[in-house]
Amino acid sequence: MHTYSQAAALVLIDMQKESRYGIEGVDEVVATAERVVASCRTAGLVVAYTRHVNRPDGIGVSTGEVFDSEGLPVYYRAGTDAITIHDAIQPEAHDVVIDKHRWSGFHGTSLDLILRNLGVRELIIGGFTTDCCVLSSVYDAYAHDYLVSLVPDMCAATNEGSHQAAVLMMANWVYGIEILSAGEVVKKVAGEPYRSWAATEPDQKRFSAETLQGAYESLF
Amino acid sequence: MHTYSQAAALVLIDMQKESRYGIEGVDEVVATAERVVASCRTAGLVVAYTRHVNRPDGIGVSTGEVFDSEGLPVYYRAGTDAITIHDAIQPEAHDVVIDKHRWSGFHGTSLDLILRNLGVRELIIGGFTTDCCVLSSVYDAYAHDYLVSLVPDMCAATNEGSHQAAVLMMANWVYGIEILSAGEVVKKVAGEPYRSWAATEPDQKRFSAETLQGAYESLF
Amino acid sequence: MHTYSQAAALVLIDMQKESRYGIEGVDEVVATAERVVASCRTAGLVVAYTRHVNRPDGIGVSTGEVFDSEGLPVYYRAGTDAITIHDAIQPEAHDVVIDKHRWSGFHGTSLDLILRNLGVRELIIGGFTTDCCVLSSVYDAYAHDYLVSLVPDMCAATNEGSHQAAVLMMANWVYGIEILSAGEVVKKVAGEPYRSWAATEPDQKRFSAETLQGAYESLF
Amino acid sequence: MHTYSQAAALVLIDMQKESRYGIEGVDEVVATAERVVASCRTAGLVVAYTRHVNRPDGIGVSTGEVFDSEGLPVYYRAGTDAITIHDAIQPEAHDVVIDKHRWSGFHGTSLDLILRNLGVRELIIGGFTTDCCVLSSVYDAYAHDYLVSLVPDMCAATNEGSHQAAVLMMANWVYGIEILSAGEVVKKVAGEPYRSWAATEPDQKRFSAETLQGAYESLF
Repeated sequence: MHTYSQAAALVLIDMQKESRYGIEGVDEVVATAERVVASCRTAGLVVAYTRHVNRPDGIGVSTGEVFDSEGLPVYYRAGTDAITIHDAIQPEAHDVVIDKHRWSGFHGTSLDLILRNLGVRELIIGGFTTDCCVLSSVYDAYAHDYLVSLVPDMCAATNEGSHQAAVLMMANWVYGIEILSAGEVVKKVAGEPYRSWAATEPDQKRFSAETLQGAYESLF
Repeated sequence: MHTYSQAAALVLIDMQKESRYGIEGVDEVVATAERVVASCRTAGLVVAYTRHVNRPDGIGVSTGEVFDSEGLPVYYRAGTDAITIHDAIQPEAHDVVIDKHRWSGFHGTSLDLILRNLGVRELIIGGFTTDCCVLSSVYDAYAHDYLVSLVPDMCAATNEGSHQAAVLMMANWVYGIEILSAGEVVKKVAGEPYRSWAATEPDQKRFSAETLQGAYESLF
Repeated sequence: MHTYSQAAALVLIDMQKESRYGIEGVDEVVATAERVVASCRTAGLVVAYTRHVNRPDGIGVSTGEVFDSEGLPVYYRAGTDAITIHDAIQPEAHDVVIDKHRWSGFHGTSLDLILRNLGVRELIIGGFTTDCCVLSSVYDAYAHDYLVSLVPDMCAATNEGSHQAAVLMMANWVYGIEILSAGEVVKKVAGEPYRSWAATEPDQKRFSAETLQGAYESLF
Repeated sequence: MHTYSQAAALVLIDMQKESRYGIEGVDEVVATAERVVASCRTAGLVVAYTRHVNRPDGIGVSTGEVFDSEGLPVYYRAGTDAITIHDAIQPEAHDVVIDKHRWSGFHGTSLDLILRNLGVRELIIGGFTTDCCVLSSVYDAYAHDYLVSLVPDMCAATNEGSHQAAVLMMANWVYGIEILSAGEVVKKVAGEPYRSWAATEPDQKRFSAETLQGAYESLF
């Protein structure tokens, strides 16, 4: 049996090559994830990936999924490069790779079964997109009693506003969440002193359109 | 057996008297919900409520839940008025009332079991708070293949920015969603012509801090 | 917060007054459960009950559920004494009481959420009926990685053969299960030496019609 | 998109080459399944398979899973022929193949998500072993409101008694179940007259050790 040194796991959400949504800053985020993956491997943490997969024949896809003129799903189509994890962060033999048909990594998958079985209590989470598959996975992780460390610079969305707002929502409502940069996660995983944001009361980072940018920046 | 005339349900999320979070505009939203509830009852739709409930002894509460100096959960405490549905929209005998311990109405509850068993395909959703329990319930509703009609003026949050951003995220990602005001829902339920926003492509309402307000307003 | 001294819980499945199925030996099994409940309370274990509940209006009942001539569900009807837990083993304030609409205590309920949140790892299980709600709950408990202690004399079915066969199936397939009498559970919970059956290899108690009785008896 | 002509699916549970449990009559059951698969394909039904899979590194395996002297799981090990579906009933392109880590095909998988999404209401079920993965899958199918057609001669167990008892339990408790032979299923799928057993009251086939054999035979 393969054993892990810590009750924590890195969970990368949908860091696949699908590029049609226009996710912003993908190359930089993948490079960031590469460093985090390396540090987690060194520390012996579980490394888990989710992959969003739509069958070419459309079986099991979400309601309203977009199909092309040939009747094939446009996004995350199985059998194309779009569902492949980015080269720099390819899974290794003992990693956990979870194919999923819905946004949350926990819906209709074995992700919770596996993490729970491994004794994992804390998840370090990043991926695409912040406001959709990452957000739903983080909310579900919290519902399953995992502690969450969210790494915003290891996340990306199609638009800055939604990325920022989603991070703030998670900061506000996921009690016990830590928000920290990839650089700080690397220190944390290595057992070194690190800096993170954690709430001192619920719903601490309320915002309006005017304060969104500043509220987001205050997390770092 | 009680029967319903349509394969749709009204789902009101956590419209309880708990007031300590400082949700904005509760009275107005409850008054709005009252009109929608009445129209749904007239049309014979299923009316379902979720109630967030924290046991006084803390059994089953979320990780990081806030306790007072006497060791009692501060929010949504069973045995107090805080968990009661607002007076104007009290459940009736044939309604569905779901007590829950996590944000999503679908997590650790019989909500999906009951709606599915009733043959319900479409959910009209509102409640508190837009960016937390409503958002997670809508994302989960979509994961379970329900069509969603979201009624933003029947939702509220603790801050305008997060309310607006959450509505935009749902508009962007929940394919097939309809965004419509309570006034339009009343028409829809009555089988009259109504006006709603529906996407013509995925992720249509991207925003930045500067455009958040305008993007939100463009939905109505 | 209420705290428990051990990472174990007693889970009593559907030990309700519903008597129309003709479960055999109910009084004796309830008296047996009474002793086990008392010992678990003394030891500070979590005590959990499931209750099968069918709404009078039929909402959420299983496919094929039996209704009477007035359109009311015949069994486990809410609002009647049939759904009440037997008097001798009434739940107390800090117990966990889970209402359910399907057989397994884990389906469409918060049972796993609560037990997991409490840090429970081992379940002591009994109830009605051995071959249906107990069996499905034990199989699900195992699927959720709980260790199971099954107490056959705290279980009952409508017929001896199905009771015996169900116990043997659980003995054969639920790896790590302990099969033990109520008297031995009381010792175990008290931290005293006790006697139980545990498999030394998978599928150890195969049987035919001819050997069913003997195979069952060999467990004790 | 691939479309199916009926709201029914054939679900074959764990009909894999794993032979170490000593399942009885595998060759005959596989040959039987071959005929049923062919008839379902002809009729345009969804054909779904579950495969039980244990990772060689033991990640995610059940509590108490058996490992060999090299630390590898003995049964259903990924990377060996044991997890392969039998040659005569190999999946085709549009089939649904569900890998699972627990007994029930519905636990920690996308099986329900996919069947529900396809509009499937009725499941024709067979596989290995009758008293474990088939039984738990049938009980879960019923919990998810599917109608079940159970095909006992397309099922097998390691011992006759447990096979018979499990079939009787399903006959007794899964309301609306049809019990029918593979020959009759082929007729049913083809829209021809067929013969099946269906209950006229709950818990109709009670048995003792003495009557087990006869009760089982009375189903056909």
